[in-house]
Amino acid sequence: MARTQVGIIGAGPAGLLLSYLLHSEGIDAVVIEARSREYVERRVRAGVCEHPTVELLREIGVGARLDAEGLPHHGFSLRFDREDHRIALSELTEKTITVYGQQEIVKDLIAAHEAKGYPVEFEVSDVELHGIEDRPRVTYRDADGVSRVLDCDVIAGCDGFHGVSRPSMPGLKAVDREYPFAWLGVLARTPPSHEELIYTYHERGFALHSMRSPEITRLYLQVPVDEKIEEWSDDRIWSELSARLETAGGFSLSEGPILDKGITPMRSFVAEPMQYGRLFLAGDSAHIVPPTGAKGMNLAVADVRVLSRALVDLLQHGRSELAESYSDTCLRRVWRAEHFSWYMTSMLHIDPDGGDFQRRLQLSQLRYTASSRAAATSLAENYVGLPFG
Amino acid sequence: MARTQVGIIGAGPAGLLLSYLLHSEGIDAVVIEARSREYVERRVRAGVCEHPTVELLREIGVGARLDAEGLPHHGFSLRFDREDHRIALSELTEKTITVYGQQEIVKDLIAAHEAKGYPVEFEVSDVELHGIEDRPRVTYRDADGVSRVLDCDVIAGCDGFHGVSRPSMPGLKAVDREYPFAWLGVLARTPPSHEELIYTYHERGFALHSMRSPEITRLYLQVPVDEKIEEWSDDRIWSELSARLETAGGFSLSEGPILDKGITPMRSFVAEPMQYGRLFLAGDSAHIVPPTGAKGMNLAVADVRVLSRALVDLLQHGRSELAESYSDTCLRRVWRAEHFSWYMTSMLHIDPDGGDFQRRLQLSQLRYTASSRAAATSLAENYVGLPFG
Repeated sequence: MARTQVGIIGAGPAGLLLSYLLHSEGIDAVVIEARSREYVERRVRAGVCEHPTVELLREIGVGARLDAEGLPHHGFSLRFDREDHRIALSELTEKTITVYGQQEIVKDLIAAHEAKGYPVEFEVSDVELHGIEDRPRVTYRDADGVSRVLDCDVIAGCDGFHGVSRPSMPGLKAVDREYPFAWLGVLARTPPSHEELIYTYHERGFALHSMRSPEITRLYLQVPVDEKIEEWSDDRIWSELSARLETAGGFSLSEGPILDKGITPMRSFVAEPMQYGRLFLAGDSAHIVPPTGAKGMNLAVADVRVLSRALVDLLQHGRSELAESYSDTCLRRVWRAEHFSWYMTSMLHIDPDGGDFQRRLQLSQLRYTASSRAAATSLAENYVGLPFG
Repeated sequence: MARTQVGIIGAGPAGLLLSYLLHSEGIDAVVIEARSREYVERRVRAGVCEHPTVELLREIGVGARLDAEGLPHHGFSLRFDREDHRIALSELTEKTITVYGQQEIVKDLIAAHEAKGYPVEFEVSDVELHGIEDRPRVTYRDADGVSRVLDCDVIAGCDGFHGVSRPSMPGLKAVDREYPFAWLGVLARTPPSHEELIYTYHERGFALHSMRSPEITRLYLQVPVDEKIEEWSDDRIWSELSARLETAGGFSLSEGPILDKGITPMRSFVAEPMQYGRLFLAGDSAHIVPPTGAKGMNLAVADVRVLSRALVDLLQHGRSELAESYSDTCLRRVWRAEHFSWYMTSMLHIDPDGGDFQRRLQLSQLRYTASSRAAATSLAENYVGLPFG
């Protein structure tokens, strides 16, 4: 039987960052992960890092490759009325966002764990949490199928929306909403058609032009919620993207081989509270945002920053105030991100049940946002990330 | 048979202001109104004048009593979490709003018409519009029951939501939404309990503390859409107001005799386009906003300012461009106000079908609006009134 101070379930950005922050403060932690290292290092998810996320990664010394390879963006476009209306992030907020894939951060954090010898166990199975009220214990099988028991002071559930941690918490209340549309996302081997992100409102539906690198473009299309990916040939995808991204001045969409395509449903979900006894949830295990505001990974980072401080106080100094207020502290930022993500989503998507009234409101809101410095600043300060609390 | 250049249907703020603006430019106009002078001078409606509205009334010389008796407000409160969060209008926008009843503006405009001898006919009946495509003519009975015909170059339909003008327009498209709640409004003879307006979000429902004068308080309660006024005794009204307006620090609501009470449904409505042939709609005949943003009368004033310029160009100089773009020009501001009014309404009311997700979003939005200068400025600049186009 092994023992650690903090048992961390999940080696995504939340779990790995928490582990690294705790070890840096002299707290012992073990990360266990159901998937393989290769899988988590290749899992394509979020790609936009908020300013506070980037600052934190730099501060703790895992920002070198992000600084070298990440693409700092000083603005993005709202495209509507067949024209671009730029939201000048750095002019409005003096901050930028950085395009750098979540899997790259995962790679950097795994490499940092390896360099320091902090333990991360991949390919574990049959994970179960026990005694979360007073005597936490994690049981699982390791990569070789051997049964293991990990005694801990605290368990951190960083295992995502479908993980075992949230279902292990009693008395949890879920507050959620599903949206009547989904995103069809493609990764294409072709240079971005524009140097910045383009969030497009079009009568055919929302479209997003984004990128992963100077060679790889990431593109999204709003599709019906029950859409089948089989109905979308590469040709149909390019043709629909061209139709939605058209501008009065002419916009040329750079095409190339599609490397990956998939459909993601859109959901808002918050579990309240985020802590029970000695179990703390962080990241997607506790909350999901629709991807429109690019807030998912950034919220996980914010949770973990609050949690690491709370656990240092609890485990090193025996002070429980921060641990007790963990859920309330995080939920404030979570609901801010939920509201912002809902706002971006509802401003930019065609709601099949929305009708003319809603579309007129959307266009008025877009035109106002593009023409009012106050409204653009409000959007921008949320997009680059409000300061950590 | 009489003749005028512009036949104006309705002696509310829109019709009277249009008439005054046109006469000031040397254009002949006649206003006809179904109600009596006493009725329109006592009809209690809107009470918040935007900065551009006040400026316009001053410019044309009908702002003296407004300046003497109107109450300039430099801010208002958002009350939620049982605390006040002030939106400092003048600090954020360098502009103020003025609390001055719509019926006072109507009185001032009627007095100005009387002083200059501009014609306003009250208590007309059987109003009908004819020949709006090319040869406009208004038929009606005057106060003595005598049939009259008014030949015009143009008809301005300023006769409100239930007037005859809008139904006289062919091919009009209505875009609208009804809300699942209404406002119970009371006028009470008691000094305001606070010097500024208080927009209150409370789990029991929205409440608004407003005023008409240093002696008269105006108060509103969100009630179900099918509520009967008979179910609200004065005692019940005061008790519900106290419950919703409570603060952690203790708020003392000043009570007094209730002079008037009534229930108003809440609706968003826009008629598109606002012009056909020689008939132009202005104000409530073309659009309705829910009262939360205090935009109804101010939109009417904005319409009329655009219309007066268009008609001067058309009738004095034979140039039709402004008349042709009248509807598009107005609809831009109309939809801005519709969006703002929808935003204020949905942020502050408890939607009986909304559930926990919506309430959490509302609270997050309120807390953010109160803590972000950009968000507060965005609210404030809409509230004091965006500049005329």
